[in-house]
Amino acid sequence: MAETKTNAEVSNPGKPTLHHLDHSQSQRILWLLEELSIPYNLVLYKRDENKRSPPELSKVHPLGRSPVLITPDGKVLTESMTIATYLLETYDPSKKFASNDWIRDMTLTSFSGTSLLDLADTELLFDLAAKHTPWPFVYITRKIKKSYDSFFSAAEFKKDMEFLTQELGEQEWFNGKEPGRADFMLSWPMDMIAARGYVDFEKDWKTLHAWRMRILARPAWKSAIDKGEGYDLRSW
Amino acid sequence: MAETKTNAEVSNPGKPTLHHLDHSQSQRILWLLEELSIPYNLVLYKRDENKRSPPELSKVHPLGRSPVLITPDGKVLTESMTIATYLLETYDPSKKFASNDWIRDMTLTSFSGTSLLDLADTELLFDLAAKHTPWPFVYITRKIKKSYDSFFSAAEFKKDMEFLTQELGEQEWFNGKEPGRADFMLSWPMDMIAARGYVDFEKDWKTLHAWRMRILARPAWKSAIDKGEGYDLRSW
Repeated sequence: MAETKTNAEVSNPGKPTLHHLDHSQSQRILWLLEELSIPYNLVLYKRDENKRSPPELSKVHPLGRSPVLITPDGKVLTESMTIATYLLETYDPSKKFASNDWIRDMTLTSFSGTSLLDLADTELLFDLAAKHTPWPFVYITRKIKKSYDSFFSAAEFKKDMEFLTQELGEQEWFNGKEPGRADFMLSWPMDMIAARGYVDFEKDWKTLHAWRMRILARPAWKSAIDKGEGYDLRSW
Repeated sequence: MAETKTNAEVSNPGKPTLHHLDHSQSQRILWLLEELSIPYNLVLYKRDENKRSPPELSKVHPLGRSPVLITPDGKVLTESMTIATYLLETYDPSKKFASNDWIRDMTLTSFSGTSLLDLADTELLFDLAAKHTPWPFVYITRKIKKSYDSFFSAAEFKKDMEFLTQELGEQEWFNGKEPGRADFMLSWPMDMIAARGYVDFEKDWKTLHAWRMRILARPAWKSAIDKGEGYDLRSW
């Protein structure tokens, strides 16, 4: 239901507007918007030559990051957690995606953005360092990454995946019968971890792999992918 | 009002119990507990010889991290955001620390744990790499850190501090006249950034420096420091 517009063309005050960066965590907000089946405006941005947010995003919010959501009454929202919460509170009157356990919902949602994402981002940093360091220094950065993995991150990823496996249990979604805020929020770090191979879901974490496949099969996910101008997390 | 106990001694089901690691983010929860002036149990843990969480914490929660809060009815809460929210919802009936703008409160709270902490943690990693790499490789890690700072983190810290300065404005606290969830949650990344010198608050960010000094002057902060067995963020 998205109407794709340039920044200057967005003027309809009746709809929320998502400012969306390609290949980014904004994908989970686009997915949520599609699940909600509401009309919204979409403004697309492309990463610059360094794979960073382009300067145009700083005109939307001084932090210059995506996602940013403009509410119909003109509020400028940042932080995926705030945007997801706002959208669910405002556009899910039947409470289809609501949680019946706020402590669990907040724990998983916060975990996705702090413990898990922090770990994934650090791994990414070593990963990028090892990828972009020129020869012969690349041997050093690879050695540093290997040592970091064996002393720290491998065990931490295992603990995080065990925790999430336990939390998902026999359910289809972390939220229960339908996905909820925790599922939308977890999709980003899990996608990054899967795409960059920080854990092998298919081999080692089958329950979580099945959860990921359920997301990829949803029509709303597929439309979000179509509209988002790219979601390849190995491209940077 | 804390009664300090060993893990085995905690049995009073009428009080919440904080499992607290020294020199850690759990300090902000201890501060909040002191502000609330309620009876609680405190179980203290010391970092191991590698400055990491000791294995005993894994018996409290499989993630093995601090803070963990056990509620009087036996729920095991992790994630600082969940714990802070639970404590404020349960033990602040007069709403002294409540926010009157949930979007702003959630944005600042989420920002403290994601964007800002992620940036600080990455800086910390380079920092520790540069500190612990043996000669002559230390020149390489220092060079990598310098290059990371100039291409990325210096500008990001500046944007984050400008954002927070703007959000604090003329107020004493991010939450208004009294500190609130956003203030409690922001204290940890800001303490780390200050202690390790990632930005110079006194010189460059006077408004935020004044906010930090207001925290340090509070009696509840001082008692939390007394009870927490150490809060030196340069020790690791």
